[in-house]
Amino acid sequence: MNILVTLNSQYIKPLKIMLWSLFFNNKEEKFDIYLMHSSITEEEIEDLYHFISRHNSRLFEITIPKKVFDNAPVVKHYSVEMYYRLLAYKFLPADLDRILYLDPDILVINPIRELYYTDLQGYLYAASYHNRIPIKVINALRLKAYEMEEYFNSGVLLMNLPLHRKNIKEQEIFQYIAKNKNRLLLPDQDVLNALYSRDIKKLDEIKYNYDARYYLYYKLQNNGKVNMDYIMRNTAIIHFCGKNKPWRPDYNGNFKSLYKHYEVLALYR
Amino acid sequence: MNILVTLNSQYIKPLKIMLWSLFFNNKEEKFDIYLMHSSITEEEIEDLYHFISRHNSRLFEITIPKKVFDNAPVVKHYSVEMYYRLLAYKFLPADLDRILYLDPDILVINPIRELYYTDLQGYLYAASYHNRIPIKVINALRLKAYEMEEYFNSGVLLMNLPLHRKNIKEQEIFQYIAKNKNRLLLPDQDVLNALYSRDIKKLDEIKYNYDARYYLYYKLQNNGKVNMDYIMRNTAIIHFCGKNKPWRPDYNGNFKSLYKHYEVLALYR
Repeated sequence: MNILVTLNSQYIKPLKIMLWSLFFNNKEEKFDIYLMHSSITEEEIEDLYHFISRHNSRLFEITIPKKVFDNAPVVKHYSVEMYYRLLAYKFLPADLDRILYLDPDILVINPIRELYYTDLQGYLYAASYHNRIPIKVINALRLKAYEMEEYFNSGVLLMNLPLHRKNIKEQEIFQYIAKNKNRLLLPDQDVLNALYSRDIKKLDEIKYNYDARYYLYYKLQNNGKVNMDYIMRNTAIIHFCGKNKPWRPDYNGNFKSLYKHYEVLALYR
Repeated sequence: MNILVTLNSQYIKPLKIMLWSLFFNNKEEKFDIYLMHSSITEEEIEDLYHFISRHNSRLFEITIPKKVFDNAPVVKHYSVEMYYRLLAYKFLPADLDRILYLDPDILVINPIRELYYTDLQGYLYAASYHNRIPIKVINALRLKAYEMEEYFNSGVLLMNLPLHRKNIKEQEIFQYIAKNKNRLLLPDQDVLNALYSRDIKKLDEIKYNYDARYYLYYKLQNNGKVNMDYIMRNTAIIHFCGKNKPWRPDYNGNFKSLYKHYEVLALYR
């Protein structure tokens, strides 16, 4: 399975935790991990290389010179790394059929085989729609996007690469960003939704992009069915969205002990 | 390493979770699991046998006919199984040097090698003293035990078997119970404390018998040092003491997601 990660040095620790959880709960699989970056040091890459090799998987480093995006519009404090996800197909091997992008603030707790082999039948992407009314309303107002029908979370993103090569136009993305840059909050996610929401296949959020902040919300929404037992048996990907990250000492949340145990397994054993 | 468990059919599910966590976090070790019981069915034993064999360890079944304790005093609703722990040495192989008794309501999250090889230098047992003032006072008043100096928890109990064979007298235990049966609340633990507390080596409670109910208490007692990060790195044994057990659907506690993930790993993979 092909996995895409794009990150800077600050996220190496969570990346290793995420990858360890992916390997551990998908023991039957082998992974090719594509790491896109501009600023990670050689030592860090070396360390990641050994970490990934120990788990029967392979690391492919894709270094992207910053000047590749010299003509791209820059949004506030966001770096050009936001483009890596949107234009990944340009830097990946031409024969790759699909790849699963994963944010580093994720814990994989069950097999992802079903997710990875989702039938993409003409869709550019598969992703989970984060369906909480307040967020939806806020986003619709903020983006005023003509084409936007859903608000998808870009942290777990399955890509149909042959179709990307055909249909995703760099200039279209640059133009959209230049025009909307004062309104973009989460640039890549906003662009994804504004330009491509109709081309995204909807994935089950509870299985593949469970937002760790909303334990109570999911439980109430589903008449109590989605309790901790249900999550542990059915959810493959827990996503620690938002500012308060589980690797910070002051983090509090329903998955704290689980995350921190994985942290020890991944980093200190 | 020799591990002792004593249980009835109701606890087979938690027992498997406990054992799985023990195996997983102690991969370098091989375990001989001694199971003392009077009422577990052949099918259940068969299932446990395969479960344990799959992890490179061995199961030794020790069936104890109920009539062995025909002369023993009976305490309220407690079954004779309370004696298995106190008189284990009588049923274990004569050449065994030490054994670690573990309750089934436990999760092992780190290596126990250091615990197992504790220097027992003349002590009958090693155990953790649960050092919460209210409990201590209550217990002292309740037992009025002349010899009792500490209140040890009997859920994690390392046994010095050669010394048991020499110094533990069945009749002394029976007499104590007959005399105190109306005051005993947790019979085996009460007897252990009343008769042997001076012969128990004190183990670090936070490392080897962390009471899952007292997350906040441990944290405050130690100026915040014993937070979740600390526990995940240093605690080997989390003990889910009390009535509300983590395998029940209505359980709530700081280690809920962790326990329920282990439940899936142990029982449903």
